[in-house]
Amino acid sequence: MKTPVKVTITGAAGHIGYALAFRVASGAMFGPDQPVILRLLEIPQAMSSVHGVGMELEDCAFPLLYDVVLTDDSAIGFRETDYAILIGAKPRSKGMERKDLIEENAKIFSAQGRAINNYASDQVRVLVVGNPANTNALIAASNAPDLDRKQFTAMTRLDHNRSLGRLANKTNTLVADITRMTIWGNHSMTQYPDIGNCLVKGTPAFELVSRDWAIDHFIPRIQRRGAEIIEARGLSSAASAADAVVDHVRDWVLGTPSGDWVSMAVASDGSYGIEEGVMFSFPVTCENRDYEIVQGLELDEFSQSRLMASDRELRKERSVIEELLPKT
Amino acid sequence: MKTPVKVTITGAAGHIGYALAFRVASGAMFGPDQPVILRLLEIPQAMSSVHGVGMELEDCAFPLLYDVVLTDDSAIGFRETDYAILIGAKPRSKGMERKDLIEENAKIFSAQGRAINNYASDQVRVLVVGNPANTNALIAASNAPDLDRKQFTAMTRLDHNRSLGRLANKTNTLVADITRMTIWGNHSMTQYPDIGNCLVKGTPAFELVSRDWAIDHFIPRIQRRGAEIIEARGLSSAASAADAVVDHVRDWVLGTPSGDWVSMAVASDGSYGIEEGVMFSFPVTCENRDYEIVQGLELDEFSQSRLMASDRELRKERSVIEELLPKT
Repeated sequence: MKTPVKVTITGAAGHIGYALAFRVASGAMFGPDQPVILRLLEIPQAMSSVHGVGMELEDCAFPLLYDVVLTDDSAIGFRETDYAILIGAKPRSKGMERKDLIEENAKIFSAQGRAINNYASDQVRVLVVGNPANTNALIAASNAPDLDRKQFTAMTRLDHNRSLGRLANKTNTLVADITRMTIWGNHSMTQYPDIGNCLVKGTPAFELVSRDWAIDHFIPRIQRRGAEIIEARGLSSAASAADAVVDHVRDWVLGTPSGDWVSMAVASDGSYGIEEGVMFSFPVTCENRDYEIVQGLELDEFSQSRLMASDRELRKERSVIEELLPKT
Repeated sequence: MKTPVKVTITGAAGHIGYALAFRVASGAMFGPDQPVILRLLEIPQAMSSVHGVGMELEDCAFPLLYDVVLTDDSAIGFRETDYAILIGAKPRSKGMERKDLIEENAKIFSAQGRAINNYASDQVRVLVVGNPANTNALIAASNAPDLDRKQFTAMTRLDHNRSLGRLANKTNTLVADITRMTIWGNHSMTQYPDIGNCLVKGTPAFELVSRDWAIDHFIPRIQRRGAEIIEARGLSSAASAADAVVDHVRDWVLGTPSGDWVSMAVASDGSYGIEEGVMFSFPVTCENRDYEIVQGLELDEFSQSRLMASDRELRKERSVIEELLPKT
């Protein structure tokens, strides 16, 4: 049997963390022959609840789940961990301004970045899900000086998968028929879901759907999908967000299929004119726990303007927390 | 690609149904090469919520999920379905007596039995999860005269898996090291979790743990585990119940491993002196969507008395709803 991988989930008593823990323990993330050890890291007030999650995990008798550690101590939660999935974040409360939200979370994620730097495996891979995800990932990465910036990512895979679902629905195909979906930018209302490179059973998407449909219906629907779910369920997306985490990490580790790519928010290297350093969602290919930004895609004026708008927003978010970033 | 299987889930907007739908759609139940069509059947008041579940399922871009049908019409929900997983049930409200609970649910499950009889595939397999599960399954089966009683089961797999988890924990082994766990009887406080036949890495469990531990600690803990989870989480078991559904159906369809068995509540054929006809949890082996009750296990006096107590309870439950059972 392989050596178990250690997976840390923060906010594991929350709706997304709860949905995720069982998927990981079942083998969905790393495959049916890879044992896992789960570390569920919560805030002190949620420890009773996370103990219940731990009991339910034991009650599943998952053959691949070798151990579950429940803790509110990040030194224990991140110790030698191979994967850190940062879901727990301060939610926006009523009357709170976005600036305050960013600052409050900056404190959490700078502390977690330091803890990961100090305690995690030096080959750890980090996925930030808690919002504002891109900027939280930037803060965490900036506070982990001994790790490579490429070990930190933020999640836009839910937007990516939502886009696949919408386009499959519109073109009356299966999601497996669609390749080269792209989410650009920030995981926020400025995100740009781009079907300009999509192939549907090998046919360019824009031979099947109009640009007007993309601009007037598809893009705003993806941007507002979270609100649509809340309206229907009375609760925010949980199982679909957890599923996107599974997909993000699985593809990062096991690789993307040949001829296709996925969307991940990663440190910009200046590709496509995006400010170096900000965490920006790009199309990426993955292999063996590493990613490469897909190069050379052509962007028309509309697309270009969308990327710039998201880049502007990310630079603005960064300016709010500039003083929390270590001086370089 | 294989022909998709149709899976109907009732109560899909509830906590267990919500956790289950995504596991099924991901391929956890029928394997990675078996497409599925989900039918989510809900009561009219839950249709908005189940629409949200449908949206989230679309948002996951599951390659195996060919279609999702959302309905409050059982003629649509069960039409030609291959698997009916009956989770939705009337919960016990404050001050309600158990007799009333049984009667209220008897109405729901007799109607569902008739609908399954009339609309489902004639090879349908039915799993009842909603409580009182054994008696609900009896009512459903009794109202489906064109189907074989062996097509109906109730779930004791959560109790089975909980027992594996506890014994693995106690003996400091992995659940995969343990075989021949058995849950006898009703999915209620009279259930009898029996480790008398268990092998732990091939060694009889009672060479590793004492009978006193089993009687004083293990059995009552399993019987009360649901309450323990509610106390910790503030919510009843959901993901672990959904996982038990996945295990129950997967093993029924794909078969139990050689040398091992699982626990399922099935129509008694008189084995072990249990009243013929009641739905009683037995050790069973499965192969190709069929089960056989394991025969010839020796039961000491203690075990015998436990089986009889659960049998008595089930006959009493049946007497409450006798008039709803078709005359034979």
